[in-house]
Amino acid sequence: MSTPLQVLVDGVPASADWPMDRGLLYGDGLFETMLVRNGAIRFEADHRARLAQGCARLGIRVDLQRVWRDTQAAAARHPQASLRLQVTRGTAQARGYTPTGSEQARAILAIFAAPAPHELPARIKAVTLAMRLGENPLLAGLKHCNRLEQVLARQALAAMEGAFEGLLASSSGLLISGTMSNVFLELDGELVTPSLDRCGVAGVLRAALLREAVAAGTPIRITGLPLAALPRCTAMALSNARLGLVPVHELDGRILAGSSRFDALAARVSGA
Amino acid sequence: MSTPLQVLVDGVPASADWPMDRGLLYGDGLFETMLVRNGAIRFEADHRARLAQGCARLGIRVDLQRVWRDTQAAAARHPQASLRLQVTRGTAQARGYTPTGSEQARAILAIFAAPAPHELPARIKAVTLAMRLGENPLLAGLKHCNRLEQVLARQALAAMEGAFEGLLASSSGLLISGTMSNVFLELDGELVTPSLDRCGVAGVLRAALLREAVAAGTPIRITGLPLAALPRCTAMALSNARLGLVPVHELDGRILAGSSRFDALAARVSGA
Repeated sequence: MSTPLQVLVDGVPASADWPMDRGLLYGDGLFETMLVRNGAIRFEADHRARLAQGCARLGIRVDLQRVWRDTQAAAARHPQASLRLQVTRGTAQARGYTPTGSEQARAILAIFAAPAPHELPARIKAVTLAMRLGENPLLAGLKHCNRLEQVLARQALAAMEGAFEGLLASSSGLLISGTMSNVFLELDGELVTPSLDRCGVAGVLRAALLREAVAAGTPIRITGLPLAALPRCTAMALSNARLGLVPVHELDGRILAGSSRFDALAARVSGA
Repeated sequence: MSTPLQVLVDGVPASADWPMDRGLLYGDGLFETMLVRNGAIRFEADHRARLAQGCARLGIRVDLQRVWRDTQAAAARHPQASLRLQVTRGTAQARGYTPTGSEQARAILAIFAAPAPHELPARIKAVTLAMRLGENPLLAGLKHCNRLEQVLARQALAAMEGAFEGLLASSSGLLISGTMSNVFLELDGELVTPSLDRCGVAGVLRAALLREAVAAGTPIRITGLPLAALPRCTAMALSNARLGLVPVHELDGRILAGSSRFDALAARVSGA
């Protein structure tokens, strides 16, 4: 029997079917967090591409044209805002993990006020966290809704006074990302960023930075980066679609010099 | 700004706060799937222990006494049934992955008709799947709501004609479990089951079987099991709270002899 006889939410019978949404049951969905400036969605093409890739990889069928039309309409109504778009596989049509293929995907769009312009601390401190990320190439790169690792990492970071971001390695000891950012390093005179083929989220600002770096004549190499390389790093920057590219001033207690190349890239992606 | 200005579900403004439940946003929750027989929840103590352990590890504060009182009341109303209890951290109180600690956990209880008595195929075939599970000791053992790996594994299995269960190894090549079951092997004359300290769900029936095996004088050893050991396995059984302990007749196309020790254990946990 696949349809519940009854569903109670905090003891109260539910009248709608959202409590059986597979997004809630299994984190079976994807999301995008976007900035809206002057009514336009920043890096819209990158957000669209990543969401489409995620839906394809998870086998979620959804009318993305309609979803993006609604999202653009929301951006037009809220020209300075931040959006969180989530697509779930929709209400479960059968028990268990296997999708039937007949689920109706659900799109949830949350509209937030634009972030305050100066929410960053004056000095950005990053620390390497002890937790390691699990590796699964089938999920790597996607902004899917299985984010317990990030929740645990943020909890660990919150317990460390004054640290803005925590750096995470994968279970095989390779640096992957921050808890909510991608990471860029100046290492042995070269700009590098971790390969995300085993885990991590391929950020849209990361994609934009990789393009801009080529245009600026300072290409960034994507590579496997053992944690042991961190002490050789002379500059570091963190990317996040909401915050932009921000320099790290202190890494595990060590003062970093900073890099004019990161400053130049930050200016290129900060946009109008 | 942490509260959304507006939330749209499929384009329609939402009047409730469930679309911002962290269970939906991040899979930030836990669940238990339970059988009810004659009004009693089978292995209730094990389900309670695992859920409590999960809440503690994820830092989800919830009145579990109330949750279990409601669950017992549902079992009394539906004396032959199957229950799915989910606890989420509740509606997000701030943006981003970090919980504020002020979230109000949400309990969702779905009541299903009892499973049909003979839903198993006459011959159980298991196949080793190519996908590997990511390893994270902090999440290992829990029945948390980050289940995309199982969703992908079930999709892969559904494409393989006639296979009842897919076996999964971790990224370091150790056998962990089936997609929806724990796995027990007769190997070199000994009963063994994989260690779940890096990934996998520690099933309540697995716990019961480990206890019963000791009582029956046929203890099961918990150990790391490289996939390479599978060809030496002479019998295999799969455990699942809904299905019980079921023998595997064919493993990757190889006929297995079966084991009277598994048959005896299956009888011990099948209950009244």
